[in-house]
Amino acid sequence: MTHRVERVTMPLAEPFEIARGVQTDAENVVVELDHDGTTGVGAAAPSRHYGETADTVETVLPNLLDALPDDPHDLDAAHAAMDRTIRGHAAAKAAVDIALHDLLGKLHDLPLYRYLGLDASATPVSSFTIGLADTDEMRRKARVAVDAGYEVLKVKLGTDRDREIVEAVHGAAPSARLRVDANEAWTPSEAVAMCEFLAGTVEFVEQPVAAENPEGMRYVYERSPVPIAADESLVEPTDVPQVATVADIANVKLMKCGGVRPAIETFHAARAHGMETMLGCMIETNAAIAAGVHLAPLLDYADLDGSLLLADGADPFDGPPVPALDLTGAAPGTGAVRR
Amino acid sequence: MTHRVERVTMPLAEPFEIARGVQTDAENVVVELDHDGTTGVGAAAPSRHYGETADTVETVLPNLLDALPDDPHDLDAAHAAMDRTIRGHAAAKAAVDIALHDLLGKLHDLPLYRYLGLDASATPVSSFTIGLADTDEMRRKARVAVDAGYEVLKVKLGTDRDREIVEAVHGAAPSARLRVDANEAWTPSEAVAMCEFLAGTVEFVEQPVAAENPEGMRYVYERSPVPIAADESLVEPTDVPQVATVADIANVKLMKCGGVRPAIETFHAARAHGMETMLGCMIETNAAIAAGVHLAPLLDYADLDGSLLLADGADPFDGPPVPALDLTGAAPGTGAVRR
Repeated sequence: MTHRVERVTMPLAEPFEIARGVQTDAENVVVELDHDGTTGVGAAAPSRHYGETADTVETVLPNLLDALPDDPHDLDAAHAAMDRTIRGHAAAKAAVDIALHDLLGKLHDLPLYRYLGLDASATPVSSFTIGLADTDEMRRKARVAVDAGYEVLKVKLGTDRDREIVEAVHGAAPSARLRVDANEAWTPSEAVAMCEFLAGTVEFVEQPVAAENPEGMRYVYERSPVPIAADESLVEPTDVPQVATVADIANVKLMKCGGVRPAIETFHAARAHGMETMLGCMIETNAAIAAGVHLAPLLDYADLDGSLLLADGADPFDGPPVPALDLTGAAPGTGAVRR
Repeated sequence: MTHRVERVTMPLAEPFEIARGVQTDAENVVVELDHDGTTGVGAAAPSRHYGETADTVETVLPNLLDALPDDPHDLDAAHAAMDRTIRGHAAAKAAVDIALHDLLGKLHDLPLYRYLGLDASATPVSSFTIGLADTDEMRRKARVAVDAGYEVLKVKLGTDRDREIVEAVHGAAPSARLRVDANEAWTPSEAVAMCEFLAGTVEFVEQPVAAENPEGMRYVYERSPVPIAADESLVEPTDVPQVATVADIANVKLMKCGGVRPAIETFHAARAHGMETMLGCMIETNAAIAAGVHLAPLLDYADLDGSLLLADGADPFDGPPVPALDLTGAAPGTGAVRR
């Protein structure tokens, strides 16, 4: 296999703020793999929170790509070789894993979900994220989102006016299904109070307290009237047994765990524990998001709006429809296509 | 897809006895699925211990087969449709699942392990089982097995002369790696005493006490100097979180869980718990065993001798090599071929 690596810097439609900070563009790294005249594409959306930047991805990718077995079907061997090359760097590995899956689907003329044996008849719709801003601005964003057809909104929280924000968004979008994400911003007691306040209004509360405080997560989980989703607390499959004791919903991301294959392993482990499943994302080009869309049949909840937050025309790739996640008639591979 | 169902009654090379009873032949039910001129084959090896006989398999198979989606790629939909048709009946469902996997491999000209992305460079060898008999006979069987080239022996126990049996087999086959399987026959305190006796002689002890006594399993697990494998205690993926607290090794069987797809889910769940993995079998035609051989890359331990226990010429199917489990050069699909 030959390969190409390309950094893409994509401006966002609007600045995107969460409890940890704000960003105005997304730097992704696209990987293309050629095999027998067919090209598979994937991308890394690195996050400093997990120790990666576009620079670290570009630094490790040549070694990861050189370590790949010759046969793109050798997915376990590919992951083992990448893991022997260097620990961590999940987003870089995800880019390779996604490109391999896209390639395999194309080689066998199968959309990825069919190659994986998944049932496309039952897919959730994706949420659309309302980032942090002043309350009036979040109210406006919610109204715009609902007018644009988004039925499920995920509202970022972690301010000193979280109740006001929820009331504003709920007032502006009374028909929308709401979820909230504190991105670790609350203390355990603040989180329990918020969960009580949110009961009846939201479907779940994501990562209420710091991942580094598992007993705090447990404190909230045991007292919350609202389901708790674990995001920062859940990185790899081996995190599931502990996380299953402190959360109801496993929020997997391709960029946290290293791609499609470890994501499926994590879903299997989470389901064995009776957890509900969710797939989230970073702010990502469709070259990456497209792979996540094909996993929609495995999900109770989808949060795959990463490419929707980009400025018009900023994404060099088109992909399958978001938020609908409708896979009927999907193209071979992931369906990511250069514009 | 069209299909054919055929019962095969296969005499054993020798009567096969375990703690629960003895059998002299194996009744399996073969399933063949035709799609676009390609045929996939699988088989059920039912066990009364799990509520199935060849009669129950033949009774439910027509409904399971009628419920299948048209597209053989739709593996999750196939399992969901079978599970909606009737709960349980895992061996009947495994026959269908195996035939679908064989068909998919053949449709894409890929041996099953490659379709599944598994790494065939690291496969264990299978054990060969020494059934219960009088001690001299078990000594003789062990010597014959070692002379025939088997390097790993699994010795059935659950008698009032278990120590004598282990000493006899170990004396007759000092170079063989030994494992023992009590098939639930011991009390917890008997099991701990046996595990202490077996330390240094065997690799692991399988199912020392009754699956219906999980606290007994825990009692043994917490005191045994030898790793404990769970077989009867582990049927489905959702059993893993509990079993991981009372055993080191997860012994999956296609006939217990319903086929290749649920087996992979169970391995993923077991690995997430840091358990070691094992694939066992019933006494099975190669039409079924062949699928298990392709899962060898996922295994720490293999116990896939089900077709080796049949009388010469009794199995209507050939399959990939056992006990070597060598997948290099494997044929498309599972490699099961009618003789």
